[in-house]
Amino acid sequence: MIKMNPSYSVVLRIEIPNRPGMLAKIMSVIGKAGGDVGAVDIVGFENGYIIRDIEAGAADLDMAKLITAAVRRIKDIKVLNVADRTLLYHQGGKIQVVSKVPLKTRDDLAMSYTPGVARVATAIADNPERAYELTIKKNTVAIVTDGTAVLGLGDVGPKAALPVMEGKAILFKNFAGVDAFPICLDTRKTEEIVQAVKWFSPGFGGISLDDISAPRCFEINRRLRRELEIPVFHNDQHAAAVVILAGLINALKVVDKRLEDVRIVVCGLGAAGMGAIRLLHACGVRQIIGCDRAGILYKGRKENMNAFKERAAAQTNPDGMRGTVADALRGADVFIGVSEAHAVRPEAIRQMASDAIVFALANPIPEVMPEDVEDFARVIATGRPDYDNQIIDILCFPGIFRGVFNCRARKINEEMLIAAAHAIADCVAPEALMENHIAPSVFKGTVTERVAEAVTDAALKTGVGTLAHRYASFGG
Amino acid sequence: MIKMNPSYSVVLRIEIPNRPGMLAKIMSVIGKAGGDVGAVDIVGFENGYIIRDIEAGAADLDMAKLITAAVRRIKDIKVLNVADRTLLYHQGGKIQVVSKVPLKTRDDLAMSYTPGVARVATAIADNPERAYELTIKKNTVAIVTDGTAVLGLGDVGPKAALPVMEGKAILFKNFAGVDAFPICLDTRKTEEIVQAVKWFSPGFGGISLDDISAPRCFEINRRLRRELEIPVFHNDQHAAAVVILAGLINALKVVDKRLEDVRIVVCGLGAAGMGAIRLLHACGVRQIIGCDRAGILYKGRKENMNAFKERAAAQTNPDGMRGTVADALRGADVFIGVSEAHAVRPEAIRQMASDAIVFALANPIPEVMPEDVEDFARVIATGRPDYDNQIIDILCFPGIFRGVFNCRARKINEEMLIAAAHAIADCVAPEALMENHIAPSVFKGTVTERVAEAVTDAALKTGVGTLAHRYASFGG
Repeated sequence: MIKMNPSYSVVLRIEIPNRPGMLAKIMSVIGKAGGDVGAVDIVGFENGYIIRDIEAGAADLDMAKLITAAVRRIKDIKVLNVADRTLLYHQGGKIQVVSKVPLKTRDDLAMSYTPGVARVATAIADNPERAYELTIKKNTVAIVTDGTAVLGLGDVGPKAALPVMEGKAILFKNFAGVDAFPICLDTRKTEEIVQAVKWFSPGFGGISLDDISAPRCFEINRRLRRELEIPVFHNDQHAAAVVILAGLINALKVVDKRLEDVRIVVCGLGAAGMGAIRLLHACGVRQIIGCDRAGILYKGRKENMNAFKERAAAQTNPDGMRGTVADALRGADVFIGVSEAHAVRPEAIRQMASDAIVFALANPIPEVMPEDVEDFARVIATGRPDYDNQIIDILCFPGIFRGVFNCRARKINEEMLIAAAHAIADCVAPEALMENHIAPSVFKGTVTERVAEAVTDAALKTGVGTLAHRYASFGG
Repeated sequence: MIKMNPSYSVVLRIEIPNRPGMLAKIMSVIGKAGGDVGAVDIVGFENGYIIRDIEAGAADLDMAKLITAAVRRIKDIKVLNVADRTLLYHQGGKIQVVSKVPLKTRDDLAMSYTPGVARVATAIADNPERAYELTIKKNTVAIVTDGTAVLGLGDVGPKAALPVMEGKAILFKNFAGVDAFPICLDTRKTEEIVQAVKWFSPGFGGISLDDISAPRCFEINRRLRRELEIPVFHNDQHAAAVVILAGLINALKVVDKRLEDVRIVVCGLGAAGMGAIRLLHACGVRQIIGCDRAGILYKGRKENMNAFKERAAAQTNPDGMRGTVADALRGADVFIGVSEAHAVRPEAIRQMASDAIVFALANPIPEVMPEDVEDFARVIATGRPDYDNQIIDILCFPGIFRGVFNCRARKINEEMLIAAAHAIADCVAPEALMENHIAPSVFKGTVTERVAEAVTDAALKTGVGTLAHRYASFGG
């Protein structure tokens, strides 16, 4: 007997003529297609039709498709919608905006709205800094995207990016108590995105730039950091860099090598690759080799360049190596893949130095499959939840903003990012640290709290944050 | 003995040297200033100082100020902040963004974020309409302001507008289950506000324009209605018009006059006045006289005009009356004040027709005080909670958006606004309808539900809404 998998069960919403035998017929069709009929609901009645939700268990995606197609072919009925467990989870969106204050009486109303709120508005008009005390500003981040580089999907546009940004928002709230709201922009011009963010920024305490394609994202980040008075975080660049650094710190402990000594190949020169190069350089790594579709990045390269790659070329590849990513990997200690599926062949990994570290982070399909290189690499990490060593941005972005907001940091500097990386690395206890356990789970322990504390400490040390407001305001 | 009023109690946050007798001294100073010491808290310790919150009861605002000043004069201590009940209510803001879905396990994470959410993004990229099913779009409104015409305060700027917009957001949620998020814009140029809203609109199902000064607000509203695919509500114009019309319908029942027969003076030609004129005209009122600082509005007037007043002049004052608001009021049946404190003298009200209806809606101080005209007017309404007949926008905007979202209306037309007004008026039962009870309380009964139903019905009738999605999507 075939085993049904709840992940592939589908719910069919069907408009059925209200006459005997129809339901039995549908159930028989589902059964013949191999499915299991689960819950059956009546959703409504409309002009002689019954609208029903019928759950059909399936063993895999193909069977689910087969069932749906078979039901669609039944005469006189109409399949209005088909959803599986994941689509149902997202129905109606994943976040809501709720009140933090009581609103039960006319007195509450008079305080929260007119006339009471006029005093609050006046207090802020007299001293704009009090917006941090009397509004949501101090704990609220705008998650900004134009939908051009969403997950592994690429350019899906602002509406299709919304469920992803909502997902980020619930992570911010659930892990760090940060209020985040998605802003999906219907423009992809650098100047217009910068303008839009500047215009809507007064109500926010920070900006997280997400899933904007390179190289526009670098310029947008640079401009906003310079022109806004609130901190700007470029998630694809900074969060990726932090979790890569965190994983690498621990992986190097496992193989007993030092950051200053290793040769690192970074494959992929989008936001994540550039962020990693920059942060690794700031940590003192000198032997970094960047690679993209045009091969190894070197000073003076002409093909497939932009201003940001020019700059990266100056920070990397001190010996002026040229060639392919396979050439770069020969004898290298660390491979960091932030590019695309199957970008590297297992044979190239085999040519690396002994105790090789391989971070194949392309999503959902890595640069090289762990099972194909497990004999040549000592530590292997991916971005996936179904392998050991998941390197994922969730480990850092909620905690970083918690830390930023706790000390009202004006900006997010490299010291804060490096502190976050060390905090994440330290969440794996020395006795638990091993080849297949270099990264902590977000669900275990106190990753977010430790990241937040480290970020606040670094902000205070570098003078971009302060705790003065702790007592100057009543805000919790 | 003086009666203490909890509304005027203040909380003083004080940094006090950690030595004996200091607290007693502070308490004695508060007592001498006439205050009552209430709760005393320790908030923290800092370099030999104790930080305390001390509550001081006061009889009125003057006493609260006196107490604060007296405490400030005590040597060696430092008053870090002073807040009263209203300011404390607003600490940290009034809204938060929370998750609607469970996020407890690695499996939840895989569904809500990567990799599961990729399927949801793809579904929307394939068919952008599905954003209504799979994201927050269908239930989410952006409350947009530039902070130039906030309540009775005027131009306080976007940050100071935020607590007011947060107040609106909690009303949207608490009364109508609508998710609303404030967007306070740091620009006041018509073209830029239009641009900003168009850019960030993909994630929202509707726009509410709020507290933008006239006449820019009219042009912004007009442009966005034409250029956006989602409904736009101009709260200052439309909500004001709806609640005025609702109150007027009931007031006319009390005095047994008909809309078509009465002469109405609208004093104030900002957003609310223009909205009222337009909606009353749509309801068949022909004798409307508009007035502003330059006196009666008439066709061909040169002083204090703009394109929108030109248009209003064509819809009003058919006899070409000229003069002051007092001239307009002579023999008029209805006065609608949406201007400023004390704009009309009681003697002018005395000159109105018998059974005069006076809506003096300027906030917080009306055009004429109810007690000064109660002998000349039969029905008197204000915008204030401390008089009978409060005419307030809360009666309509949550219900209107609920109705719009329920039928996924593409726009908000006059038929929907008029239906909302009738629904509000009908919430006062015939046997309860009287001079001092023409408007329902938002806290009693089902105002929002009835407004929503009426708005949906009107949208379906006029073909701008549909219920087709009811069964086509699983969203609740």
